[in-house]
Amino acid sequence: MRNLKLTLEYDGTEFRGFQRQRELRTVQGMLEYRFSRLLCEQVKIVGAGRTDAGVHAIGQVANFRTSRPLAVGRMAPVLNAALPADVKVQACEEVEDGFHARRCAVSRTYRYTVIERPMPSPLLGRFALIVSERLNVAAMDGAARDLLGRHDFRAFQASGSETVTTERNVFRCECRRRADRIEIVVEADSFLYRMVRSIAASLIEVGSGRLSPGAPAEAVARGQRLPKLPPAPACGLCLVKVSY
Amino acid sequence: MRNLKLTLEYDGTEFRGFQRQRELRTVQGMLEYRFSRLLCEQVKIVGAGRTDAGVHAIGQVANFRTSRPLAVGRMAPVLNAALPADVKVQACEEVEDGFHARRCAVSRTYRYTVIERPMPSPLLGRFALIVSERLNVAAMDGAARDLLGRHDFRAFQASGSETVTTERNVFRCECRRRADRIEIVVEADSFLYRMVRSIAASLIEVGSGRLSPGAPAEAVARGQRLPKLPPAPACGLCLVKVSY
Repeated sequence: MRNLKLTLEYDGTEFRGFQRQRELRTVQGMLEYRFSRLLCEQVKIVGAGRTDAGVHAIGQVANFRTSRPLAVGRMAPVLNAALPADVKVQACEEVEDGFHARRCAVSRTYRYTVIERPMPSPLLGRFALIVSERLNVAAMDGAARDLLGRHDFRAFQASGSETVTTERNVFRCECRRRADRIEIVVEADSFLYRMVRSIAASLIEVGSGRLSPGAPAEAVARGQRLPKLPPAPACGLCLVKVSY
Repeated sequence: MRNLKLTLEYDGTEFRGFQRQRELRTVQGMLEYRFSRLLCEQVKIVGAGRTDAGVHAIGQVANFRTSRPLAVGRMAPVLNAALPADVKVQACEEVEDGFHARRCAVSRTYRYTVIERPMPSPLLGRFALIVSERLNVAAMDGAARDLLGRHDFRAFQASGSETVTTERNVFRCECRRRADRIEIVVEADSFLYRMVRSIAASLIEVGSGRLSPGAPAEAVARGQRLPKLPPAPACGLCLVKVSY
């Protein structure tokens, strides 16, 4: 059996997240169903990150095993022909048998995009959060950098999750203005449930002045969620890279 | 009756074009239905340009008359609350009674976006045409500029249209590389049916080398459509501005 590594891009809007769920349209479910039919064998997809409903990806990584002799160099186009327009393979390569997209990953990088605009935008709002106020990006960036390093991030974990440990190592956490948008970039070994969206929500509050720049790091230190702060909407989030 | 001018942005993907059609989801139909319910009176929308199915807009202009006392400065948010996420008012102002969005317009500006990429892109492909080859933008720009001025553009009119005259005045026609994309911008007094998409298709052929840079202007001069060249896909086209 060959082991194939895929780099995937998807528009998460019409997916109920990455992970397979009975009767629901998910990225993993779509890949397994379409590839199984294409290759006439049961395909099982392993994904690096379980993105939530509505979350996008330009650099999700997955792998699957196949006994079929797909021609190298033609693999991605062949697989793409079997996929709908909102999920497409960007690269496909044969990897060593031991490669496991989730277990071998050493970090995931997410980007949360915010656009300041007086009115909602049908074009930009599909892949970003539109806010009508002007945000203080320097304050947001300061608060973001205070989250760097290994901490117990239970304060930024949404309820409904189960994990052995809530300690995570954040390698990169920053906020910058790029052209017409504000980008929050967070890289960590792995993430708790809705951790990036919870961090993004707190940084946006810092940017608007409703929260002090020290508040997010203090929440981490106390291990207590910031009150009345739901995770930022899924549409602004994108899994940009998985590193091995 | 007050006369209100609207600037509209919409994601054309799920619309069957601007113009009202029985039983179909169109931009005009949506605005008339939702505003009529909101204002409890029959609303009739006049649009500046009849964008086709799948074509987007960031600067469509429309107007309608109402007897209702909408508070100035709150009009756009109130109207937007009645609209779905894929069409939103960007500006709303009261204008003189004689203003007519279509008849008073002196020019429309469209942008056609092309992105060169080896693989299809679920994120970028919603609002651009993805091509896998590298295009010669200088050749495209030269061919574009040859179309400037008043000409009979019947060569770039798709079949199925009826117009009194096929003469149009093109004020701007250019092609440039901007960041990761190629933008074809065309401004004219008005456009024939699928004229911009037909021009875009010919310029892309010039960029790929399959058509000589002189071919689009020669087609105009001869008044004959370029053989085997369907209009470029709707997803790449956006109505960016209407001038008065």
